[in-house]
Amino acid sequence: MRILTAIDSFKGSMTSLEANRIVKDTLTEHDVISFTVADGGEGTVQAFLEAEDGEYIQRTITNVNGKKMLATWGWMKESHTAVIEVAEAAGIIQADKDTFHPRHHTSFGVGEQISQALDYGATTIILGLGGSATVDGGMGMMMALGVKFLDECNQLLHALPADLSRVKKVDMSGLDSRVKHVKWLIASDVTNPLLGSNGATYVFGPQKGFLKEELAEREQAMMQFSRAVEETLHVSCTEMPGAGAAGGIGFSCYSFFGATFQSGLDLLSERGKLKEKLRDVDLVITGEGKFDRQSLAGKVPIGMSRLAKEVGVPTVVFAGKVEQGLTELKEENIHVTLPIVNEPMTLDLAMAEGPRLLKEALERFQQILTLTVKK
Amino acid sequence: MRILTAIDSFKGSMTSLEANRIVKDTLTEHDVISFTVADGGEGTVQAFLEAEDGEYIQRTITNVNGKKMLATWGWMKESHTAVIEVAEAAGIIQADKDTFHPRHHTSFGVGEQISQALDYGATTIILGLGGSATVDGGMGMMMALGVKFLDECNQLLHALPADLSRVKKVDMSGLDSRVKHVKWLIASDVTNPLLGSNGATYVFGPQKGFLKEELAEREQAMMQFSRAVEETLHVSCTEMPGAGAAGGIGFSCYSFFGATFQSGLDLLSERGKLKEKLRDVDLVITGEGKFDRQSLAGKVPIGMSRLAKEVGVPTVVFAGKVEQGLTELKEENIHVTLPIVNEPMTLDLAMAEGPRLLKEALERFQQILTLTVKK
Repeated sequence: MRILTAIDSFKGSMTSLEANRIVKDTLTEHDVISFTVADGGEGTVQAFLEAEDGEYIQRTITNVNGKKMLATWGWMKESHTAVIEVAEAAGIIQADKDTFHPRHHTSFGVGEQISQALDYGATTIILGLGGSATVDGGMGMMMALGVKFLDECNQLLHALPADLSRVKKVDMSGLDSRVKHVKWLIASDVTNPLLGSNGATYVFGPQKGFLKEELAEREQAMMQFSRAVEETLHVSCTEMPGAGAAGGIGFSCYSFFGATFQSGLDLLSERGKLKEKLRDVDLVITGEGKFDRQSLAGKVPIGMSRLAKEVGVPTVVFAGKVEQGLTELKEENIHVTLPIVNEPMTLDLAMAEGPRLLKEALERFQQILTLTVKK
Repeated sequence: MRILTAIDSFKGSMTSLEANRIVKDTLTEHDVISFTVADGGEGTVQAFLEAEDGEYIQRTITNVNGKKMLATWGWMKESHTAVIEVAEAAGIIQADKDTFHPRHHTSFGVGEQISQALDYGATTIILGLGGSATVDGGMGMMMALGVKFLDECNQLLHALPADLSRVKKVDMSGLDSRVKHVKWLIASDVTNPLLGSNGATYVFGPQKGFLKEELAEREQAMMQFSRAVEETLHVSCTEMPGAGAAGGIGFSCYSFFGATFQSGLDLLSERGKLKEKLRDVDLVITGEGKFDRQSLAGKVPIGMSRLAKEVGVPTVVFAGKVEQGLTELKEENIHVTLPIVNEPMTLDLAMAEGPRLLKEALERFQQILTLTVKK
C-alpha cells in the first residue's frame, strides 16, 4: 500500500515529525510518505521547509526577556517566502524560568525576524502564531519594525516591559515601508478575539503566568493599547478571529499588516501541494493526542480526512484517546479510529509512553492488513 | 471471511459465551461460528452442551451449606455422557454469604449429581473442577456415593462440616459400585498438588475464606484425611497434578475413580470436533482478560492458536491487557494481539466496561479488514 502519514502532534507526548517518523519506521511493508503538519506553534518553520524546499536562516535577535540570542526562521528562495514562528522568536521555551511572567516578555524579536526576512527580499511572510510567552498585543514586534508608541506626555515607551496601559498615541512615521509590499499569511488554529472573556488575556494569560487577580487590570491595559492603535489606523480588528492569538500578536497582524489568517494545515497543504500527493496514495494516516467531538470542528485529522475524501482515499485516525461513540465516521471519510493505549493505565503514563504505544498500535494495524492480504 | 471465535472468559468481566456472542454480533460482515470454551469452572456444562448436543437436567441436591436446592448438570444422551461442574454443585456463588467459610462447606452435592448421572446410565462422566467453595478433599462427594469415613473410635463422621482431621478409617463397602464402570474425565486447568505450599489449602484456601492463622491446622487436617484414604486404597495421589483442584476434589477423583485429567479446552475440542470446524474457517479469534507470558503455557488462546496452526488458519487474540513485548507471536500462529482498552483508564473501569470495549475493538478490527478488501 502507498500511505501518506500526516499526524498532528500528540501534545506533550510527540511532535508531528516524530509521530510521522514512527509511522514510516513501523509500516515497513508499505510505501510511506511523511507530511509534517503544524498549527502555527513550535515546528511550523520545520513543517513548511519540508512541504516546500527551503533553508534555515539563523540570526541574532532580542529574545523574549530582552537578551540577545541566535534564532532561526525559514527561507524559501524560489517563492521569496519567509516563515517565522513566534514560538522561536518570542516563545515560552526561551523565557527565563525564574522571572516567568508576561510583564517581562516582549515580542520584539518577532519584529526583528520580520526585518531580517525583508532584508532577504521576502514578498510573502508566513507567521506562525502559537507557543508565545507574550501578552503584549504585538507592541514589541511593531516597535522592532519602527512604530513608536507614546504616552499622554508624548514620551516614547519602551518595548520591555511593554506598558500597554500607557499607550496613548501611535507614531507610524518610522514603520519599515517594506511591510506594505508583503503578502502576510498567518498560520494559526486559534480563533479567539483580542478582548473579553474569550480573549487573549483571560484565556491564554493564566497559562503564560498572569495571576487571577491581575487579569482585570491586564485586560484594561490591552483595551487601552488596542484603542490607541485603532484610533491611529482607523481600523477595528479586536473582534477578528485570531486577533487574540499569541498574546494579541494576531491583532497587530490584522491592524498593521492586513494579514490573512488560515489554519496551519490549509497553508501547508497549499504550499506543499498536498492534494497532488494524496492522489498517489491508497490510504491516509492521521491522528492527534485526543480525538473527540471538538476534533470534528477543523483540526488536523478532520482536515486531512476531508482533503483525502476529495480524491477518494480512505483515512485512518490514530489517537491517544478516542471519545466514546466516535468509532465510525464514514461520512467524514474516517474509516477507522485506532486508540494507541493498550492496557489500563494513567493519562500521565500514556503520554510518557506515547511513542512506544503508537509504534505498537501501528504494528497491530500492519499485522491486520497482512492478515487479509494473505487470505 | 469465515471466522471461528473461541474466546476464554475475561475473568470478572465476561464469560466465554458472552464474549463470543459479542464477536458474532459485531463482525456482521463475516460468517462467524462460536465455540464456547470453559476451564472446568462456571460455564463448563454449558460449553459441553454447545460443543456436543445435549440437555440440561435439573434435580434437587444438597448445596454447599447442607440445604436442599435445585441444580443442573448436562446430559448427552447419544454418547451416554454426563457433564457436572462443581461451580454449580458446590460453588462459591451458592454459599451463604453470612457464614462464608470452608468449615461450613461440603462437596456432598457433587456426589449426588454423580449419582443422578449414574441413574441416567452415564458411562462417561466429565467433571469440571473450578469455582468450588469447598476445601474438603472431596470427602463430602464420596460420602454421597456411599463411602463412610470413621474416626479412631469407629464413629461415623458427618459430611457437614467435614472434619477431615478426625478421619482414621475409610469404609468402602457402601460405595456405589457403578462408579467403577464409568470413564472419568476431569476438566481442570489447575495443576496444583493436594498438599504443601502449592497445594489446595495454602493456594486456594485463603480465597475461600480461611484465615492465615488457620492454614497450618487445615493443612494438617487435609494431610490426615489423605493419609487415611491412601492407606485404605493403597494408592498415592496427593502429588498428582490437579489433586489440589476444587479444594482437593481432584485428589478424590484420582484416588477413588482413577480419573484422567485434561484441560477444559482439550476435552471440549475432542467432544466438539473442533479441528474439523477449524478446517472450514479462514481465521480464529480467541482471547482472555490478560494475555501475558503465562498465557503461553497452555491457556485457551495459545491452545486455540496451536490447534489452528495444525490446519493452517491464522489466529488473532483480543485481550484486556497484553503484556509488553508480546505483540508478535508468529511462531505460535498468533498474528495479531489486540488490546481492547481504548483510552487511559483504571483496571476496575476496564473490567466493568469489558463488553463495550471488546465490541469497539471488534468494530475497529472489522473496519481495518474492510479497508483492505476495498483496495
